[in-house]
Amino acid sequence: MVPMNLALAGKPVDVIHTGAWTAKAIGELKKGTPHNIAGSTEAEKFVRVPRQEELQFSAEASYLYLCTNNTIEGTQFQALPESKAPLVADMSSDIASRPVDVGRFGLIFAGAQKNLGPSGVTVVIVRKDLAERADKNLPTVLQYRTHIKEKSLYHTPPTFAVYVLGLVTEWIAAEGGLGGIRKRNETKARLLYETIDGSGGYYRCPVEKASRSLMNVVFRVAGGDEAVEKEFAKGAAAASLVGTPGHRSVGGMRISLYNAVGLDAVEALVAFMREFQRTRG
Amino acid sequence: MVPMNLALAGKPVDVIHTGAWTAKAIGELKKGTPHNIAGSTEAEKFVRVPRQEELQFSAEASYLYLCTNNTIEGTQFQALPESKAPLVADMSSDIASRPVDVGRFGLIFAGAQKNLGPSGVTVVIVRKDLAERADKNLPTVLQYRTHIKEKSLYHTPPTFAVYVLGLVTEWIAAEGGLGGIRKRNETKARLLYETIDGSGGYYRCPVEKASRSLMNVVFRVAGGDEAVEKEFAKGAAAASLVGTPGHRSVGGMRISLYNAVGLDAVEALVAFMREFQRTRG
Repeated sequence: MVPMNLALAGKPVDVIHTGAWTAKAIGELKKGTPHNIAGSTEAEKFVRVPRQEELQFSAEASYLYLCTNNTIEGTQFQALPESKAPLVADMSSDIASRPVDVGRFGLIFAGAQKNLGPSGVTVVIVRKDLAERADKNLPTVLQYRTHIKEKSLYHTPPTFAVYVLGLVTEWIAAEGGLGGIRKRNETKARLLYETIDGSGGYYRCPVEKASRSLMNVVFRVAGGDEAVEKEFAKGAAAASLVGTPGHRSVGGMRISLYNAVGLDAVEALVAFMREFQRTRG
Repeated sequence: MVPMNLALAGKPVDVIHTGAWTAKAIGELKKGTPHNIAGSTEAEKFVRVPRQEELQFSAEASYLYLCTNNTIEGTQFQALPESKAPLVADMSSDIASRPVDVGRFGLIFAGAQKNLGPSGVTVVIVRKDLAERADKNLPTVLQYRTHIKEKSLYHTPPTFAVYVLGLVTEWIAAEGGLGGIRKRNETKARLLYETIDGSGGYYRCPVEKASRSLMNVVFRVAGGDEAVEKEFAKGAAAASLVGTPGHRSVGGMRISLYNAVGLDAVEALVAFMREFQRTRG
């Protein structure tokens, strides 16, 4: 929906390519929207996000597209890129995990299912003036302006998902708001990264420190020995720590630390990791 | 999504115009899809659906579009139109209310929120060969073939809504399947229409008998006296019979008899109607 609504005729979309999710977005742009890869770390297998000085913008981009957190690669933008064009972000996997300066974005979209509530609802925050870029001949339901005008009630909304999302925002407020949530998330991630980095190389996170995600921590076990990693996942599951295998496209392990994960779960995981290393390492 | 995927280049879409929902569909077609109104009862304020002999088809229509049940006008197709072009139906308000010969349709779509479960999920039944008509340059998520290929898991599905929809289909099976549900719905609707028709004109259903909906029963009170109708709605609500006013665009009363409404609710309503007529009529 973003290119349909926000791409200006004859002007390119700038994209920062950071992995599987931006690859999908680029695949859609290839169907007929002029675009420019403003930066990419593909050559380094996406172990970091591009640095500001590496970005090469078009003179008159419609917008600059990025995915703020990459679930498969375990990277996250810790600082937003500076650009003249409005930022458009896929924030599906880190929305509401920390405060963001919403004023810097032209558009943010996010599926709710990671940090906000049940699957089935997508949150969009869009600058009203940008929503007016869209051709009025687009299908009505595919124009952001329709949903602004109708207060998200143009079609019957997914009431249950919206209701639970409301409850989650109340929970976030009770946890001290997004500032409190960020502290919680930082504490969880720090414990896990310190365990990895302090394992003498038995566990290894391939992601450059400045790009490490607070949401998805990826690491290899025993130099990436797949048999040991399989055993790790099996042992973890036996200790009720499920879902540790990484995405099949990259292998290794991946621990997701979305808002709903408590520090106690991370403590249980690092205890298991230390014990696994002690007995098998 | 239907015209994007199923309209053949240079060939028109045939549409049967039966009210507010088909008006919306026609509005979208007007944005650039050639189309032909194969039949319309607009001149009669949609108090019936067109008869077979009134329909005028294009020589080579991509498909014939209809809305099988019209919630605002209180009409329903009791027999499907015969046509050479594949039938495409908006069945949002009467899917799973009675058996249908699915083989006669090229595509059926329906929001789940009336008869199938919570809002937030749309059911689509599409002939695989028709899904192959779509230009592969359409956004991936807007191609039906994507959802066929990915077994509806191309994007994260609305899990809660899908789960409850599954429970509802089990309930339908336990009620004797769609045949049992049809009997249930016919019994409810018959009781209400008989009450209206037997009121000596105090209540009046404007819809022609052969087009009357089993799902949405519309009627006027006291010759359409709006003050009396307001009183009717107020009195009904006081008796826990809520939601009786008709759609604001047509006025009058509207009783929705979706699958979840029990015969007991209709019995309570007709008792209220008789008492209202006795004391105010």
